[in-house]
Amino acid sequence: MEPNGTPSTNYGNRDDVPSHCLQITTEETHKVVAPPRRTTLEKLSSKLKEMFFPDDPLRQFKGQPLKKKLVLAAQYFFPILQWGPNYSLTLFKSDVVSGLTIASLAIPQGISYAKLASLPPIVGLYSSFVPPLVYAVLGSSRDLAVGPVSIASLVLGSMLRQEVSPASDPVLFLELAFTSTFFAGLFQASLGILRLGFIIDFLSKAILIGFMAGAAIIVSLQQLKSLLGITHFTPQMGLIPVMTSVFHNIHEWSWQTIVMGLCFLVLLLLARYVSMRKPKLFWVSAGAPLVSVIISTLLVFAIKAQTHGISVIGKLQEGLNPPSWNMLRFHGTHLGLAIKTGLITGILSLTEGIAVGRTFAALKNYKVDGNKEMMAIGLMNVVGSFTSCYVTTGAFSRSAVNNNAGAKSAVSNIVMSMTVMVTLLFLMPLFQYTPNVVLGAIIVTAVIGLIDIPAAYFIWKLDKYDFIVMLTAFFGVIFISVQEGLAVAVGLSILKILLQVTRPKTVMLGNIPGTDIYRNVDHYEEAVKLPGFLILSIEAPINFANITYLNERILRWIEEYEEEDNKKKISSLRYVILEMSAVSNVDTSGVSLFRELKKAVNNKGVEIVLVNPLAEVMEKLKKADEGNNELIREDNLFLTVAEAVASLSAMTKGQASNMEEGAQAIPHI
Amino acid sequence: MEPNGTPSTNYGNRDDVPSHCLQITTEETHKVVAPPRRTTLEKLSSKLKEMFFPDDPLRQFKGQPLKKKLVLAAQYFFPILQWGPNYSLTLFKSDVVSGLTIASLAIPQGISYAKLASLPPIVGLYSSFVPPLVYAVLGSSRDLAVGPVSIASLVLGSMLRQEVSPASDPVLFLELAFTSTFFAGLFQASLGILRLGFIIDFLSKAILIGFMAGAAIIVSLQQLKSLLGITHFTPQMGLIPVMTSVFHNIHEWSWQTIVMGLCFLVLLLLARYVSMRKPKLFWVSAGAPLVSVIISTLLVFAIKAQTHGISVIGKLQEGLNPPSWNMLRFHGTHLGLAIKTGLITGILSLTEGIAVGRTFAALKNYKVDGNKEMMAIGLMNVVGSFTSCYVTTGAFSRSAVNNNAGAKSAVSNIVMSMTVMVTLLFLMPLFQYTPNVVLGAIIVTAVIGLIDIPAAYFIWKLDKYDFIVMLTAFFGVIFISVQEGLAVAVGLSILKILLQVTRPKTVMLGNIPGTDIYRNVDHYEEAVKLPGFLILSIEAPINFANITYLNERILRWIEEYEEEDNKKKISSLRYVILEMSAVSNVDTSGVSLFRELKKAVNNKGVEIVLVNPLAEVMEKLKKADEGNNELIREDNLFLTVAEAVASLSAMTKGQASNMEEGAQAIPHI
Repeated sequence: MEPNGTPSTNYGNRDDVPSHCLQITTEETHKVVAPPRRTTLEKLSSKLKEMFFPDDPLRQFKGQPLKKKLVLAAQYFFPILQWGPNYSLTLFKSDVVSGLTIASLAIPQGISYAKLASLPPIVGLYSSFVPPLVYAVLGSSRDLAVGPVSIASLVLGSMLRQEVSPASDPVLFLELAFTSTFFAGLFQASLGILRLGFIIDFLSKAILIGFMAGAAIIVSLQQLKSLLGITHFTPQMGLIPVMTSVFHNIHEWSWQTIVMGLCFLVLLLLARYVSMRKPKLFWVSAGAPLVSVIISTLLVFAIKAQTHGISVIGKLQEGLNPPSWNMLRFHGTHLGLAIKTGLITGILSLTEGIAVGRTFAALKNYKVDGNKEMMAIGLMNVVGSFTSCYVTTGAFSRSAVNNNAGAKSAVSNIVMSMTVMVTLLFLMPLFQYTPNVVLGAIIVTAVIGLIDIPAAYFIWKLDKYDFIVMLTAFFGVIFISVQEGLAVAVGLSILKILLQVTRPKTVMLGNIPGTDIYRNVDHYEEAVKLPGFLILSIEAPINFANITYLNERILRWIEEYEEEDNKKKISSLRYVILEMSAVSNVDTSGVSLFRELKKAVNNKGVEIVLVNPLAEVMEKLKKADEGNNELIREDNLFLTVAEAVASLSAMTKGQASNMEEGAQAIPHI
Repeated sequence: MEPNGTPSTNYGNRDDVPSHCLQITTEETHKVVAPPRRTTLEKLSSKLKEMFFPDDPLRQFKGQPLKKKLVLAAQYFFPILQWGPNYSLTLFKSDVVSGLTIASLAIPQGISYAKLASLPPIVGLYSSFVPPLVYAVLGSSRDLAVGPVSIASLVLGSMLRQEVSPASDPVLFLELAFTSTFFAGLFQASLGILRLGFIIDFLSKAILIGFMAGAAIIVSLQQLKSLLGITHFTPQMGLIPVMTSVFHNIHEWSWQTIVMGLCFLVLLLLARYVSMRKPKLFWVSAGAPLVSVIISTLLVFAIKAQTHGISVIGKLQEGLNPPSWNMLRFHGTHLGLAIKTGLITGILSLTEGIAVGRTFAALKNYKVDGNKEMMAIGLMNVVGSFTSCYVTTGAFSRSAVNNNAGAKSAVSNIVMSMTVMVTLLFLMPLFQYTPNVVLGAIIVTAVIGLIDIPAAYFIWKLDKYDFIVMLTAFFGVIFISVQEGLAVAVGLSILKILLQVTRPKTVMLGNIPGTDIYRNVDHYEEAVKLPGFLILSIEAPINFANITYLNERILRWIEEYEEEDNKKKISSLRYVILEMSAVSNVDTSGVSLFRELKKAVNNKGVEIVLVNPLAEVMEKLKKADEGNNELIREDNLFLTVAEAVASLSAMTKGQASNMEEGAQAIPHI
């Protein structure tokens, strides 16, 4: 019955607790002290601070004189005041070059993306004029190039088309687009002001990779309309309706359009390939869209191709952005749709903008404040909605070109904006003969870069669950819809977190011979179990969602230990040591787990011992005790597993004779 | 610039890393070994096992001969086969006493609860006849007393009344009640069969306490109809419509009813009080309802009170449960409502049944298998829906009486069932003159016990967030509706888990003098920071939801360290040691955190060191490395913080001269 002294005992290849484990005697053990007292208010305020101000934005203001504080505050809200005074001619030269480069990309893209959103092409150019100016004043990224983006354009168009037809009711459609843009901006700015920016973290990398690939395919499929020259095309987005529409309208296919489209597609893809192989030749792919537009326009004009079945943009209005605040509709039947569209395009464009900003900030080793960026992007869209712009953000492709072209500050956005202004004022008639098929080719080339196969493979290799989430986003977007595909994928990601909390790991620790280190016996094969001790590490906060599981699992560990004992006809278990370093918190249910566990094991003549409970956990157990020392007692509380083992072994030996009787009294289950 | 050798350095009251920290030399350090290789399939199967079979129900079958296996399987599905053979006359005597006691409670409660659900009173008695028999065969609890319960009755009635009026369309209402019961049973059994029982864990203790108190108030308010003798009463449940209805119908109040109600209410509450003070007198409160029914019925009969405005139950049908499978409606407009009602009453009654079963099992030290119980309760309700019963489960109050009366096994349920059978066959005419007001008083007395003020206070003391969740459930149930109140409360509980994951704790560790133990410097005031080392412990799995926060927070720790250094005009930070014992997992986003962190700190001339990464974390980092040792390297990987500090200090000293040059090259930010 008693492990010591019985020659047959051979637990963990040891006859007894190894002597080095006993080096620490009871006098030497270190007490687990109560954490310093803090009031509820102090605890709440520190929690709220970590929740909403993890970056501690007020730190820089501390201890500064009032005047300095005001300057810092102005610089905080208008980053241009921070970098403006140090701006130099050298920097300006770089910014002019990069600004002109992105303008050459922005003009054809602006027209193309506006068409993707079923908006008049000119709105795309308007959107490349005002928002970049706003961002230059408010934004804290040096590399972000602002303008309309493919995904937000796609979603805006497809969501609004659910209720309003852009062909039969173009004014209402435009009004709803501006209203959605307003709500998108309002939502983005609110996230920043309320410091709820962490919401966009729930669009994980896996989701974004799947979603972007799906969106790229959807967007490319939409371009089949212009690439094949079809006139009667489905307004739906899904793979199946689009393919049905394409093959039901074979008689509308125009070979002239197809040939022209293929030529420019090959040209653009080639330019992209060159720039990817030699990053120094970035201007090849950056300039290719504008060059394609110019060549194709000249070609159409020269051979009067529009009469041979090649559709062209047609007459465009001249002049700068007209005001549009009178077009915002805050009432009527479509308000709900406008709000919903604003929310979804808002969060999507915000995610893209923040991700781009962070990527380049990490690359160039400066910092981008997420919440501040949200305010900047949000305000930019609110102002945009007043000035005939639709949803804009920092674009992946355009920012990459901007960075490659040597942009040094937000001035490159101003240069781009000015170039677009000149275009709007004087060059619009030139686009009259631009064929739609070239715009389609430009979009396809742009979005193809969103399909990231190596990243998908990396996820497959690393985490199968993430891979499933990615596939869900991908297929959801292709077969159902952008919003629902994303929603299901986010739901799956959250489910994973909940499952992890519901089924926290508990592992058995063993002693690494010759040390007082205790590690997982499944991971470290040399780790040995000590007779009489079951050492378990709980690796998650304990709460209502997992107490039932933990209770069952810990009792199963104990039963397994006893079964092993039974085979050897001994009954050695005296102490269950719970290593609590990883239990960052318990709630009221968690407290009851300890109570129930204690009751259950005490019935078996076993004691529960806690090792290194953290401050909050200790506090709650103490409070739950109400002074009767049921859960937290000096003699069942240790700072390390080693000290617990040493101290308890010493005690057990002292009580050996008493224990023997006690052990026999316990039924041998 | 260099911490060692500069006399001004005085970090953490030490001039240097204390000598005891250096006792462990590099030769002695223990390697972090790679975890044993497991295939994806092995990992998946072990995960699924922990997810769905944490109790390992097949363990007992292992290594048994086939015949024994079959016997065990039969016993597994029909627990009666397990305890039946050992059943004795002594046990039977106890069970008869307790069975009769709960029957005396079950008859008036059955009639009352059926009225609460707007069902004919007889259905309440039917429901106390068949389901207890089914449970006796399938159930594994010895103390559960089965029958209709107040909360499920309330919810069933209020949800069905939303679409169908029990007064104007009683047959349809009854059909929907049976159909809902069928779906409730199906849902409960499915949860058990699919081993998804952990879903009910999401109704945490805090939610249940708030919800039950709210439900008790709602139920009591409903009784004002019979207690005041009002005939025109609102069909709604909320506090406001009920109180409006009560005070708009003052002219309907009947003083005779009120007087009678008050007398019996006082009598019942007194009986309850006596039993609570002296548990031995449990029979006082157990018998009181039946006594009240008998006395009041005699009284009404004697003085013909029904003619004085006291409403009575009226003629009841005689005979056993008629079959009702032909009344189940699996089509038509109300199918959705029936399914929804079934789901909600199913989960509520299941929660009550499981909680009661677990409570008494813990009290008497036997085990109740949650998933098996779900199958038993589910099957009981499916069978019930075929035999004119509505939703039943193990009832709190009735089981407590059962246990107090000395019940030893499920046979007490059989005895109760037989008593109810006799009542149904022969005694129904006796209830004709039972006044409704007494039934109301019985319900009020029963549900008042559901309001648990001490438990609410305990929650307030322990966890303020749980308290808010509790209040949400309470006020939600009172002012909105049972389902929505519960949904919001569950949502809040899940939000808490998500917030904990989004904002994991990171704490700075310091050395406890004279040991190689490292603990939180905020908790252990004697713990000292070591110059050159920033030791952080991350206390949560790292995933998409928290990488942004962790990145910012860790960089802020580093900046704070550097600022403290700046004040002393030194630049000592060399190593950021991340203690990873509590990081139970990383996902693909988590891996990228390490990469970004490494880039960010390497720019500052600081190295990241990992201590004790767990098996899964190591595996993923290794895979992400693809052999180029970027994240996981021998020299930045240690088993304990102490070994990391010792080994790195030794190395730094060796490289001191080289380091000095290096340190000067780093700009002093």
